Amino acid sequence: MEVHDLEFLFHPDSIAIVGITTDPDDLRRQRFLKPLLDFGFGGRLYLVNAKGGEIMGLKVYPSLQDIPGTVDYVILSVPAELSVAVMKDCIVKGVKAVAVYSAGFGEVGTEEGDALEGEIVRIARKGGIRVIGPNCLGLHCAKSRLTYRSEYPKESGPVAFLSQSGGNTTHLVQMAAPRGVRFSKIISYGNGRDLNESDFLDYLAHDPETEIIAVYIEGVKDGRQFIRTLRNAARAKPVILLKGGCGEAGVRAAAGHTGALAGDDITWNGLCKQLGVVQVYSIEELADLMVSFLFFPLPKGRKMALVGVGGGASVLACDACTNSGMVLPPIPEHIKKRLLQFTPLAGSILNNPVDTPSIFQVPQFIETVKTVTSWEEIDYLITFLLSADIFPSYLGRYEQAANGVLQSSKICSKPVAIVLQDASHPETFEKTFLAQQRLTSAGFPVYPTIARAVSAINKFLAYHRQ
Amino acid sequence: MEVHDLEFLFHPDSIAIVGITTDPDDLRRQRFLKPLLDFGFGGRLYLVNAKGGEIMGLKVYPSLQDIPGTVDYVILSVPAELSVAVMKDCIVKGVKAVAVYSAGFGEVGTEEGDALEGEIVRIARKGGIRVIGPNCLGLHCAKSRLTYRSEYPKESGPVAFLSQSGGNTTHLVQMAAPRGVRFSKIISYGNGRDLNESDFLDYLAHDPETEIIAVYIEGVKDGRQFIRTLRNAARAKPVILLKGGCGEAGVRAAAGHTGALAGDDITWNGLCKQLGVVQVYSIEELADLMVSFLFFPLPKGRKMALVGVGGGASVLACDACTNSGMVLPPIPEHIKKRLLQFTPLAGSILNNPVDTPSIFQVPQFIETVKTVTSWEEIDYLITFLLSADIFPSYLGRYEQAANGVLQSSKICSKPVAIVLQDASHPETFEKTFLAQQRLTSAGFPVYPTIARAVSAINKFLAYHRQ
Repeated sequence: MEVHDLEFLFHPDSIAIVGITTDPDDLRRQRFLKPLLDFGFGGRLYLVNAKGGEIMGLKVYPSLQDIPGTVDYVILSVPAELSVAVMKDCIVKGVKAVAVYSAGFGEVGTEEGDALEGEIVRIARKGGIRVIGPNCLGLHCAKSRLTYRSEYPKESGPVAFLSQSGGNTTHLVQMAAPRGVRFSKIISYGNGRDLNESDFLDYLAHDPETEIIAVYIEGVKDGRQFIRTLRNAARAKPVILLKGGCGEAGVRAAAGHTGALAGDDITWNGLCKQLGVVQVYSIEELADLMVSFLFFPLPKGRKMALVGVGGGASVLACDACTNSGMVLPPIPEHIKKRLLQFTPLAGSILNNPVDTPSIFQVPQFIETVKTVTSWEEIDYLITFLLSADIFPSYLGRYEQAANGVLQSSKICSKPVAIVLQDASHPETFEKTFLAQQRLTSAGFPVYPTIARAVSAINKFLAYHRQ
Repeated sequence: MEVHDLEFLFHPDSIAIVGITTDPDDLRRQRFLKPLLDFGFGGRLYLVNAKGGEIMGLKVYPSLQDIPGTVDYVILSVPAELSVAVMKDCIVKGVKAVAVYSAGFGEVGTEEGDALEGEIVRIARKGGIRVIGPNCLGLHCAKSRLTYRSEYPKESGPVAFLSQSGGNTTHLVQMAAPRGVRFSKIISYGNGRDLNESDFLDYLAHDPETEIIAVYIEGVKDGRQFIRTLRNAARAKPVILLKGGCGEAGVRAAAGHTGALAGDDITWNGLCKQLGVVQVYSIEELADLMVSFLFFPLPKGRKMALVGVGGGASVLACDACTNSGMVLPPIPEHIKKRLLQFTPLAGSILNNPVDTPSIFQVPQFIETVKTVTSWEEIDYLITFLLSADIFPSYLGRYEQAANGVLQSSKICSKPVAIVLQDASHPETFEKTFLAQQRLTSAGFPVYPTIARAVSAINKFLAYHRQ
């Protein structure tokens, strides 16, 4: 297999953090250093600040030139006006790639900012250096222990996230990680003046470690190139896209954020539809779709059964399903009869939805799921568990109920998605979090509300129909 | 002021729980007793079970007739088939109201169930007893310490919630309480065979302790009566309505849940629009609207400013605002100039949205809010704080940032709504929860996402325009 031109970016032998804050009271001092140490980056790690000194046991070199060994990769964190000088130093040092964290370039909207951005990229290109950013967090690759965030999962996984916004990468990862999503590459590319969205998207489309590509994008540098790349990427792998900057205010915000020229929304909708790209509209939905593509096995058809506990919750769950265009066939008499053998009629709904008090008795709940999914007309199952907030003596009962959901999902003959309703109190939140971790570790897709589950599954099914 | 016919329901001098479980290992034993004890119900409290004995220091009477004193209010918790006999006992005892918790009546869809439900109501009416339910949790009134849930807020407040589903009442209350919502009355009325949605809605419309009425309804007994009552209620107070049971599956679920004949969705939409009722589509949205009506002062117009931290988050925030039809005018030069006096251009967006790193420095953040809201064109402000998950050393910085939001909101000259983005980890969730409590205690409306905030505020503004 051919190695992609950009593969080297993710495997530096040596990294220098240039412009590290030396003030020991400034939390920013740890920004890039601590994550690399926490991940156990195996290569050489250098720090640079004109003031010299030592940070966390590492010598601080006054300049790049003072470093004895070679430097592959530079994290540039000096004020924008000093970046030109550092970039020139990088050439002398033989640096291969520079991730420019610093802001104050094209995105500020001044001629100076734009010129400065152009200048550093021009210098870099002349010296054969590739630039990530400016105004970005850079690259994360768990396998090579290259990262910018200590809290990211240390294990690698099949999802790549390419994002014009650094904050949005972290928001997404922190939201998706407890639901079992693991990442091959995370790319925060900011203004994208040298390496842009198309370059990285092409890389991810060819990356053997990436099976699902998620993209947050505010604007593109070259529309034709991007559409061509997006088409090829979407042919190779599922691509989930969140477009930031619609409407006048959003476009204004995107311009100020990454200097992006955010196109109008309708063009993007049409483009995604045409290319088979799954379009989402929030970070939450992006996480939901990742979970669906990772953990929800493709059902044979679109007919679902809904099994949970709580009458009012079942009614609202059905409404959410209907609003998403889901099909819930009414339960046939022979299935209902079998359920009645172990389910009291009072306090139940045996009608698809199946609202059953047996959620508190693991063997009966397993039997309920077995019976419902033995019904041939049904292609997949959604099980939901009421918010832990609702259980009168919730701690014990919630665990028991979650255990029933886990056990029954394991023996279920059809694809199953699980909803653990959101909790609103620290104690119940923690219980839900732990149950979620058990379920995701066992390989199940877990969602916080029925509405979000069915909306995501609906888009997932639509993708596969196409 | 005239006392409403149903006022007596909320002020019983004595309560008997008939059919309390005597098995000490059965958690259901505490179901109605513990909440009444926890709330310190001040009247006489009796327990009835044919087996007799003692529970939590209270004598268990073999029957209602064995109770020495009078009984105003009965919580009926025997199997449906025994309910007729108990209802006859209630008449002999001179009981005034019975809340029938038991299920197994009209909602099971059998002729027997329906006949039994008709029978107990017929007996009750003959004896001058009013019936709540069957198949319900009954009444909650913090002031008279009448309740069915230990975890409900003990303080009274101006919001009433009338709900056909018991589970949905608890879900809503547990979600809304940490956001500062306090309740005058909570009514779970189930099948509503005697006292129905119209009776209770009429009561709440006249209740001097209720300023905002929220309703969860699956179906109505008498359409004309209900429309008349709803019209009068909506004239008197804001009414927020969540209709459960749309589409074929939802209607089926509602029938099995409360025996309701859920009408089709379009009729309800039209009705709500016509009567000025605020229609919502989920429990979460119901909580968001309660918060808006309670804590968001009515702004003079529809033009908003958005101040927060995080570029990508600001872009998506704008998109959410635009999608809700909100108006964000671009910031004028003179305001931008004033912001630049204390805000670095690099890493900021000064454009409405205002994305400012000063959120970590309380005095600067206060100055930012002052400056932005001094801009005359702006009617109100939304401040948002990134998810606590995102802060690199989040615990300390998040508290600091939340403090800036609190202080600046206190001095803000225009209505302010606050978004504390959801957290996905127990530690960050707890921090967010505590910040939320501080902000809600200070009287501010707090929302978990920008999209939910603007959607709720939009409906709130539309209500007041009407």
